[in-house]
Amino acid sequence: MGYAGWLRARHGRALNAANREALSRFLSARPRLVDVRPARAVIPGMTSERILHAGPPIEWARMSGPLRGAVVGALLYERRAATPADAESLAASGGLTFAPCHHHAAVGPMAGVVSGSMPVLVVENQTGGNRAYATLNEGLGKVLRFGAYSADVLDRLRWLETALAPAIGAAVRRAGGVDLRLLIAQALQMGDECHNRNRAASALLVKTLAPHLAALELAGSEQERVFAFLAENEHFFLNLAMAACKASLDAAHGVPGSTMVTAMARNGTDFGIRVSGLGDRWFTGPASVPAGLYFPGFGAGDANPDLGDSAITETAGLGGFAMAAAPAIVQFVGGTPGDALATTRLMYEITLGEHEIYKIPALDFRGTPAGIDVALVMRTGILPQIDTGIAHRQPGVGQIGAGLVRPPLLCFERALEAAAQARRNG
Amino acid sequence: MGYAGWLRARHGRALNAANREALSRFLSARPRLVDVRPARAVIPGMTSERILHAGPPIEWARMSGPLRGAVVGALLYERRAATPADAESLAASGGLTFAPCHHHAAVGPMAGVVSGSMPVLVVENQTGGNRAYATLNEGLGKVLRFGAYSADVLDRLRWLETALAPAIGAAVRRAGGVDLRLLIAQALQMGDECHNRNRAASALLVKTLAPHLAALELAGSEQERVFAFLAENEHFFLNLAMAACKASLDAAHGVPGSTMVTAMARNGTDFGIRVSGLGDRWFTGPASVPAGLYFPGFGAGDANPDLGDSAITETAGLGGFAMAAAPAIVQFVGGTPGDALATTRLMYEITLGEHEIYKIPALDFRGTPAGIDVALVMRTGILPQIDTGIAHRQPGVGQIGAGLVRPPLLCFERALEAAAQARRNG
Repeated sequence: MGYAGWLRARHGRALNAANREALSRFLSARPRLVDVRPARAVIPGMTSERILHAGPPIEWARMSGPLRGAVVGALLYERRAATPADAESLAASGGLTFAPCHHHAAVGPMAGVVSGSMPVLVVENQTGGNRAYATLNEGLGKVLRFGAYSADVLDRLRWLETALAPAIGAAVRRAGGVDLRLLIAQALQMGDECHNRNRAASALLVKTLAPHLAALELAGSEQERVFAFLAENEHFFLNLAMAACKASLDAAHGVPGSTMVTAMARNGTDFGIRVSGLGDRWFTGPASVPAGLYFPGFGAGDANPDLGDSAITETAGLGGFAMAAAPAIVQFVGGTPGDALATTRLMYEITLGEHEIYKIPALDFRGTPAGIDVALVMRTGILPQIDTGIAHRQPGVGQIGAGLVRPPLLCFERALEAAAQARRNG
Repeated sequence: MGYAGWLRARHGRALNAANREALSRFLSARPRLVDVRPARAVIPGMTSERILHAGPPIEWARMSGPLRGAVVGALLYERRAATPADAESLAASGGLTFAPCHHHAAVGPMAGVVSGSMPVLVVENQTGGNRAYATLNEGLGKVLRFGAYSADVLDRLRWLETALAPAIGAAVRRAGGVDLRLLIAQALQMGDECHNRNRAASALLVKTLAPHLAALELAGSEQERVFAFLAENEHFFLNLAMAACKASLDAAHGVPGSTMVTAMARNGTDFGIRVSGLGDRWFTGPASVPAGLYFPGFGAGDANPDLGDSAITETAGLGGFAMAAAPAIVQFVGGTPGDALATTRLMYEITLGEHEIYKIPALDFRGTPAGIDVALVMRTGILPQIDTGIAHRQPGVGQIGAGLVRPPLLCFERALEAAAQARRNG
């Protein structure tokens, strides 16, 4: 048999009953933004002692600079500490419980820190009924997710809590929810890949919510501030995309025997993946520093290793997997539009299928590569391509660039070993 | 010399001093939306006896169905007639002056009818200081520009006049204007070609104006209606793109000896072009019926010949010339994404240069084809590619499809002949 036949056979083997079931649950997900509410009111198991963070589990001692900074910021924001030093002592004391966002149906970009008072987007998968959560995007510059905790950062977080989130929540409820699957599908035809380019989806969201925000009868100045914040934040949609991907992939988690990846996430120290048929285990390896373009004055020596739950977008076939839909992103992460096409084409080699709603015009409306398979990754040696922001390794400096990164092969080796073990035991 | 050398030589000859000057004026234009005002208050030479229309000059007797319908609608809207029959009598009486929008620094999609009370977008070329005008886009369905004049059409036009236009005008003035060159450049990276796909630019405009609309302190219900109208109208930006193109091309008009095309326009009967160095003359030929995709229930037999000033976008290197930026448009006008790339590549053969701000990611950020040259068209036999909406030939039915169309070769033959004559006389 020729190469095409070999490919079909390889994919045929990969697409066994368990993977077919997991893929089908993922593809049939219909994520919808239904509300915006305080984390402690909606996230299952959320308490005031609990701080959620990006990536696989990690203790304070091993946390990187930006993650530590974000934890300090959250404790100041929650008024659990009066000074950064107090916050660090509290964090180191063992008196708090750190847990991955992913353990609470949540996701967060970069440090991904969520504390009880923070408002979160509530995204419901209308097919499976499961929900996922993400904080509101704070914008660029000095922000908590890059580990900043200065007064202006905390002030902005409080404005998000007291003004922006209630307004958006009310508008979303008045709109009867917002179909995120439709917004993502449109954005893919408008040059977004919904990880590092969210300009189209963010604008479509503003357009969709504007009539409902208008009807709230906020004071003109407050309403102006809401619209100005949304107009200036081209990544506002990122957190919605992430929660949509999380809700869709959680639906595919827990199918016995499935080797489909349901999460890829980084805490700034470790890279971890989870696999549908392998329960709550993380398969981890050391996080790498992305290769990319740096803002003026910064270089690779300033970069923190790979950080954030935003690789949930790649896990769902967006981000780096959908770069062919977003040729303009190469100006931000490096490479040429031709590289963007080639990257997406390569990702079909390690995925179980193609999305039926998320389509890429430049590839003749082919669906995005859907359902990373651990076995296909190991058989081909092709690692998932993630495009990502790069954080400074010191807390609070912020984003210093963007680029491309791949998970360590070790994650997939360990997962495939565990899958083989499970088969032997099963 | 090989083909590449021949091409360079051909373009070198075309790019003589006159064409270089015209192209440079066009490329350096910076169109900015600065206001929204009643036509009679801002359009030079506009009177209450004057009805502007799309395309080259035409008398009532030769007007097609949709153009006649729009004239009737304008007379009812202006309360110059009480019934459609009265309006037709008035139009046929010779008591009105019909003139092309293009004779008044204006452009209008489809019928392109402008009467004195209609609000118009005021777009200023910040480099040349010249202004261009276009009405506000009414949305899809039964609308004046397709020749509809039922009560709901007239009611909507009055709401545009009394509510929407004052609100947008105030927001634009409060924003200090809106940089249309920037919006168009962004939209080209977001899958718009700014003729038949305006989804991105329309959303970016809403996002840009929203804080200023919010600050106007309109009643919540009125503000909601404004935002809902803008949210539902994915072609709202078309009229802004057209005025931006008109302002940019008018700056290039009137360079003696230049064979650069500064307008292509259709009145539903005739197709006409104007050329920079050939004064106010139109070079016309019969308008064709576009080849394209029809909405269910309609076919080519229902179609009106090519109509509207919207080909000003192609004249400026957008629309069909920029299809490579908008692969998703093939779902609307027919063909494949590969055809869209090929169409743009072909248009470089008949243009004098490339735009320095309007870039196409899929062509490695090459500038859009800029400055159609009559001589290059005649030397290559390649006609400009226009993508366009298709109107029903009966007034008021509306849009029945979209497709591709080319001007008659005759326009270019006549223009080149006139250019040769002018050289002999000069």
